[in-house]
Amino acid sequence: MIAKVNIKGGDMEEMAAQLKEGGVEDLAAQLEEMKTRLAAVEKKMPEDKLSMIVFSGDMDKVLAAFVIATGAVAMGMDVVMFFTFWGTPALRDKNKKVGGKDAMGKMFGTMLPKGTCEMKLSKMNMGGLGTAMMKRLMKQKNVATLEQMLEMADELGVRIYVCEMSMDLMGLKRGEMVDYQHIDYCGVAKFLEEATGSRVQLFI
Amino acid sequence: MIAKVNIKGGDMEEMAAQLKEGGVEDLAAQLEEMKTRLAAVEKKMPEDKLSMIVFSGDMDKVLAAFVIATGAVAMGMDVVMFFTFWGTPALRDKNKKVGGKDAMGKMFGTMLPKGTCEMKLSKMNMGGLGTAMMKRLMKQKNVATLEQMLEMADELGVRIYVCEMSMDLMGLKRGEMVDYQHIDYCGVAKFLEEATGSRVQLFI
Amino acid sequence: MIAKVNIKGGDMEEMAAQLKEGGVEDLAAQLEEMKTRLAAVEKKMPEDKLSMIVFSGDMDKVLAAFVIATGAVAMGMDVVMFFTFWGTPALRDKNKKVGGKDAMGKMFGTMLPKGTCEMKLSKMNMGGLGTAMMKRLMKQKNVATLEQMLEMADELGVRIYVCEMSMDLMGLKRGEMVDYQHIDYCGVAKFLEEATGSRVQLFI
Repeated sequence: MIAKVNIKGGDMEEMAAQLKEGGVEDLAAQLEEMKTRLAAVEKKMPEDKLSMIVFSGDMDKVLAAFVIATGAVAMGMDVVMFFTFWGTPALRDKNKKVGGKDAMGKMFGTMLPKGTCEMKLSKMNMGGLGTAMMKRLMKQKNVATLEQMLEMADELGVRIYVCEMSMDLMGLKRGEMVDYQHIDYCGVAKFLEEATGSRVQLFI
Repeated sequence: MIAKVNIKGGDMEEMAAQLKEGGVEDLAAQLEEMKTRLAAVEKKMPEDKLSMIVFSGDMDKVLAAFVIATGAVAMGMDVVMFFTFWGTPALRDKNKKVGGKDAMGKMFGTMLPKGTCEMKLSKMNMGGLGTAMMKRLMKQKNVATLEQMLEMADELGVRIYVCEMSMDLMGLKRGEMVDYQHIDYCGVAKFLEEATGSRVQLFI
Repeated sequence: MIAKVNIKGGDMEEMAAQLKEGGVEDLAAQLEEMKTRLAAVEKKMPEDKLSMIVFSGDMDKVLAAFVIATGAVAMGMDVVMFFTFWGTPALRDKNKKVGGKDAMGKMFGTMLPKGTCEMKLSKMNMGGLGTAMMKRLMKQKNVATLEQMLEMADELGVRIYVCEMSMDLMGLKRGEMVDYQHIDYCGVAKFLEEATGSRVQLFI
């Protein structure tokens, strides 16, 4: 059948040329390639997440970590805290006791603070006087205590990971850690996995 | 009118097929979708910005923070520093005096260093001896003092935010802080907002 | 020649319309623009790299830095460590001696730890007792020593940069640093360059 169409022959030739060189087929291929690249970029893009290593066991630094953590959740961010080394004892429950510790573990158990209540300031501790002063001041200024912060963090869904190597080194047992819904135990790989996908990472 | 075109019927059929399945219309739609995704990725992409929390009040750490800050500006980066907790007193002006402090505020005011001049080393302070030695050494080696660093940072446009909660806790008043063009006062939300859009974040 | 093609006139008109308004030519231009934007995004995207500033000279913190560094390499990440200030002496070789130091340099040389063996805990050092205890504990728990960590890091290809300003301040010479294949000396600009292209940055 002969095509009866209302277009000029020139248009048809142009169309044919466009479709041939750099034409539809080629555009589709380019688009496919870009889609793949865009998907790769999207996958690599860090999430709206904050990852913190809490290495320090100083009251002021752990407080800062929780202020940042709860603030981030309030802004809609996903928050993960990794407690390692001196930070680990901050998560001990002062009312829990566990047995089966070796001599070294018992010694560490006595020397390390039992939870957030027993933690001290990094500066001006002055034999506990500075820490007590700061706590009174925080109460007076309506700043939440570390205990309240921990509770709030749990309610807000802040995930806490505790470093297993630190637990092992200090002879700490899971049975003596605080009751926290979103607590888990892990190694450095887990932290790196979370940190790599986070927009903000801090070592505290 | 009958189209007189110099193309073969097979080409026309191919063209028609291309335009139908995965054709121009479809390509345009795909392109639109990709544009939206690309714009989202571009918006989420962190800026060429450095955000630092200066938590420490140690001379050496604050010095490191300013070396990094001024270095980053020199490389064309936008730089924001958040002074919190022990870092806050580093920004007190040694020549300014304010009244209206309560007993606790007065006590803190006396105990905390008045600006960068009174800050001490985190290690080997040795009752001030190590700090004095380091200062002499820095002068000898032509390393800028903290006072010079602060001035340079201001000239370079480094933005400084001071944590309001820390100011309140330590009883510090805005009237006793250094004259700095790009200073402002804020809470943790402001830091997180800046940090989220930054390529580099550090907790010092 | 008259085209004998098996398509309807309506299809041809539609094709022509599609090619004219928002047609192939336009699509190609849009695609080009998107390619440029996508390439810019890809270029800015941080690499799978970890940059750490090791400012601290505390045994526990440097240990944490190496645990993170070697863990990251094991996960396929590129790792760069910047040793500055108190971290610098951690890289001194205990068996190397260099001459030509001025009085200040000699004094620092004696006071600063000579390599990882002489480093102390940041907390509970207790006149060296705590540090010794921790070392025994680490051996017992099969945690690698700092010396072993450094060796492992070298084998794994962890790049180490030493801050030249710190070396100069403390009077340290390159001749007294450890034998490490991937060691180099740099300023803050180098760190910022690496950090800017990294997914994770930490100040330790």
